[in-house]
Amino acid sequence: MSETTHHEMWERLNLDLEAHDGLLEVLGKFYGDIYLSQDNRLKGMEYLDFVLSEVHGLRIKELQEAKEAGRKVVGTFCVFVPEEITLAADAIHVGLCAGAEAGSDLAEQLVPRNTCALIKSFIGFKMAKLCPYIESTDMIVGETTCDGKKKAYEAFNEIAPTYVMEVPQTKTESARALWRSEVVRYIKALEELTGVTITAEKLAEGIRITNAKRKALQRLTALRAASPAPISGRDSLLINQISFYDDPVRFTAKINELCDELQERIGQGKGVAPADTPRLLLSGCPMAVPNWKLPFVVESSGAVIVGEESCIGTRNSRDLVDESANTLEGMIDAITDRYMKIDCACFTPNNERLENVTALAKSLKADGVIHYSLLFCQPYSHESLKVDKALQNAGIPMLSIETDYSMEDVAQLKTRVEAFVETLG
Amino acid sequence: MSETTHHEMWERLNLDLEAHDGLLEVLGKFYGDIYLSQDNRLKGMEYLDFVLSEVHGLRIKELQEAKEAGRKVVGTFCVFVPEEITLAADAIHVGLCAGAEAGSDLAEQLVPRNTCALIKSFIGFKMAKLCPYIESTDMIVGETTCDGKKKAYEAFNEIAPTYVMEVPQTKTESARALWRSEVVRYIKALEELTGVTITAEKLAEGIRITNAKRKALQRLTALRAASPAPISGRDSLLINQISFYDDPVRFTAKINELCDELQERIGQGKGVAPADTPRLLLSGCPMAVPNWKLPFVVESSGAVIVGEESCIGTRNSRDLVDESANTLEGMIDAITDRYMKIDCACFTPNNERLENVTALAKSLKADGVIHYSLLFCQPYSHESLKVDKALQNAGIPMLSIETDYSMEDVAQLKTRVEAFVETLG
Ligand code: SF4
Ligand code: SF4
Ligand code: SF4
Ligand code: SF4
Repeated sequence: MSETTHHEMWERLNLDLEAHDGLLEVLGKFYGDIYLSQDNRLKGMEYLDFVLSEVHGLRIKELQEAKEAGRKVVGTFCVFVPEEITLAADAIHVGLCAGAEAGSDLAEQLVPRNTCALIKSFIGFKMAKLCPYIESTDMIVGETTCDGKKKAYEAFNEIAPTYVMEVPQTKTESARALWRSEVVRYIKALEELTGVTITAEKLAEGIRITNAKRKALQRLTALRAASPAPISGRDSLLINQISFYDDPVRFTAKINELCDELQERIGQGKGVAPADTPRLLLSGCPMAVPNWKLPFVVESSGAVIVGEESCIGTRNSRDLVDESANTLEGMIDAITDRYMKIDCACFTPNNERLENVTALAKSLKADGVIHYSLLFCQPYSHESLKVDKALQNAGIPMLSIETDYSMEDVAQLKTRVEAFVETLG
Repeated sequence: MSETTHHEMWERLNLDLEAHDGLLEVLGKFYGDIYLSQDNRLKGMEYLDFVLSEVHGLRIKELQEAKEAGRKVVGTFCVFVPEEITLAADAIHVGLCAGAEAGSDLAEQLVPRNTCALIKSFIGFKMAKLCPYIESTDMIVGETTCDGKKKAYEAFNEIAPTYVMEVPQTKTESARALWRSEVVRYIKALEELTGVTITAEKLAEGIRITNAKRKALQRLTALRAASPAPISGRDSLLINQISFYDDPVRFTAKINELCDELQERIGQGKGVAPADTPRLLLSGCPMAVPNWKLPFVVESSGAVIVGEESCIGTRNSRDLVDESANTLEGMIDAITDRYMKIDCACFTPNNERLENVTALAKSLKADGVIHYSLLFCQPYSHESLKVDKALQNAGIPMLSIETDYSMEDVAQLKTRVEAFVETLG
């Protein structure tokens, strides 16, 4: 990642320059090994490589310029925070989930040791002054999803004021009413933050932009059903990861271009791996940048990943907001309903997910599924057992992996994944 | 515990007789060591000793007789399930939380290894056919509190159908509305189960009985402020544990008698330990029967326990339902409001608890607090850090203990507790 020209900006953002340089160096090397070493990459990936190389650079510069022009930046940790509304307030919506171990030891001052790596990572990044996104936000929005995050925000709030949305735990009518009231409260909070009044027109535009992004990602998902697999799982994960940082309109255009290229490639019968390569679906916890460990392990074990059933994947792109409403109230209802469809493991029951995973595995012609839970993630660890049963009933083999962000278990993971892939051969 | 006369009943309840006999034997011995060995016990504890010795015997017989007479038995795992309503439907309300390791290995077939001991225990007791309460229930009521239980009920539901109430995660007006709708839904579910119509009169009676039980326990709590400590922490914990199993009217009368005796003892300046014995408050996760490990460790380390800030303790007895309403709707509001005051760590924020722990420690003249979290309990592990800070600000030392139901760490716990007690001397 480029680090020559941005030091002044990072200094203004109060990053720990030395530690941050170290982080970028490690990441640059890691990215080179995992990404740039791939064969047969799409030309369209150049854009993603560029964005990633400038994810702490040019994109932060854009945020700073937008802020100077009066726009606000909202940081989030969960796909439950409605991007439509953020955009309707002329604000910028970015993800703050972090996927590296840096700072996690510091985080243990604020949260228990038995906390998932994702939470330790975003708290650690803040404490170690490593994240220019957190430092660029005007508002940080948390949510009551898992116990880990719900309670971590209380501690995080002391170092980075955090607004928390209450996500219900069931999908009853009363739960929907609670969530709708939270959507309305978020609208008011953003109006207050930005001074912008969220009109029906503005909200309709926010919905259109966000839906268009989701449609582009849906297109990508659908194209991956082709055999041979036309794009690597690593590259697709990167696209999904960058969807949380990039400007949504530019990103959507670029992904649609990339899908055109994919379509052409599929027409020519070309792929990134031979047609008989075992095809795997990843399912479970989100993988935030630069958490590429498992995809790399899988794709260097003789398999290719054809889908990601996670929030940095299909869980975030599958459902659109109904665009037929033309009043503000109607749009709020449409947004409420769309978000209530999210099949996060934090819900009980969450049987939709079992159906969705099975259907996705089938539609992507996956030969098997790898269920991925972060260590100490209770919701997804529980569902791992249920997804396994559902897939067994559908005749689809599953491997359950529980890990964190450390690199210590890579060899062990590789052994397990290779053994699993062999059974599919 | 008596086992001679009840075998037929246990067989009818489909318990694993051999394993159950083994359990009772171990428990009997454990109880003898921990309870019957104490000096200066109150005469009133004879009743509790008797109830505990017959907790799987005579009390189950009572439940069976009540069932034959047409009453229903409702089993619960959390103080959020309103006992007032259960009683108003002429049903019997019992706790199903379990405090022993038996069966926990079986439980790991249904829930992840990284699950707290309490959850593994109740699932294990069911799977190993060890719990006559579970087998006596006509309805089991779970609730969406922590992720662990919320997701465990999904698996538990497959072996023991479980009705789940949604407890909100914040205390906003919308959260209260959700909870109120769940209270109403519980009323309807019980009416359906029992065929009893819950009238204002019946609900008022349920409220009176439950409040009276709470008032007796409040009286006990208040009397423990005396120095020298007039009752051991073990005995008080037992009283609180038995409050979840015994007939509430009989129990209340007996506890009030015991409080009369306590008052007399206090008047005479008598206690269970010298006046200069360090006084400790336990705070954190509930300790279900027969989880007496930590209280025993503490009280054999030169300290005396003067209070339990937990759901099997003050969290369940502190707040009464306002009795001034005389319409059904008014009573439902009063019940809703009372339960929304519970300061469970599952809420965010939950600053009331910090104030409540500090105030309780002061009013009980505690020299220190031991915070108790079950391993993998995220809500209470997070709050351990916050309670520590709050107590530090109040000048009250705290020791944080994280453990499970195994006996392997007893020596290590004793070393830590002794060291802590010494600093208070
Ligand atoms: S997995 Fe659940 S909590 Fe995590 S980002 Fe997705 S919806 Fe939010
Ligand atoms: S991975 Fe699991 S525990 Fe971690 S933040 Fe997401 S839902 Fe919570
Ligand atoms: S600690 Fe919380 S979840 Fe557990 S019984 Fe108490 S209120 Fe319920
Ligand atoms: S001890 Fe903690 S994790 Fe276990 S059931 Fe209670 S709140 Fe949940």
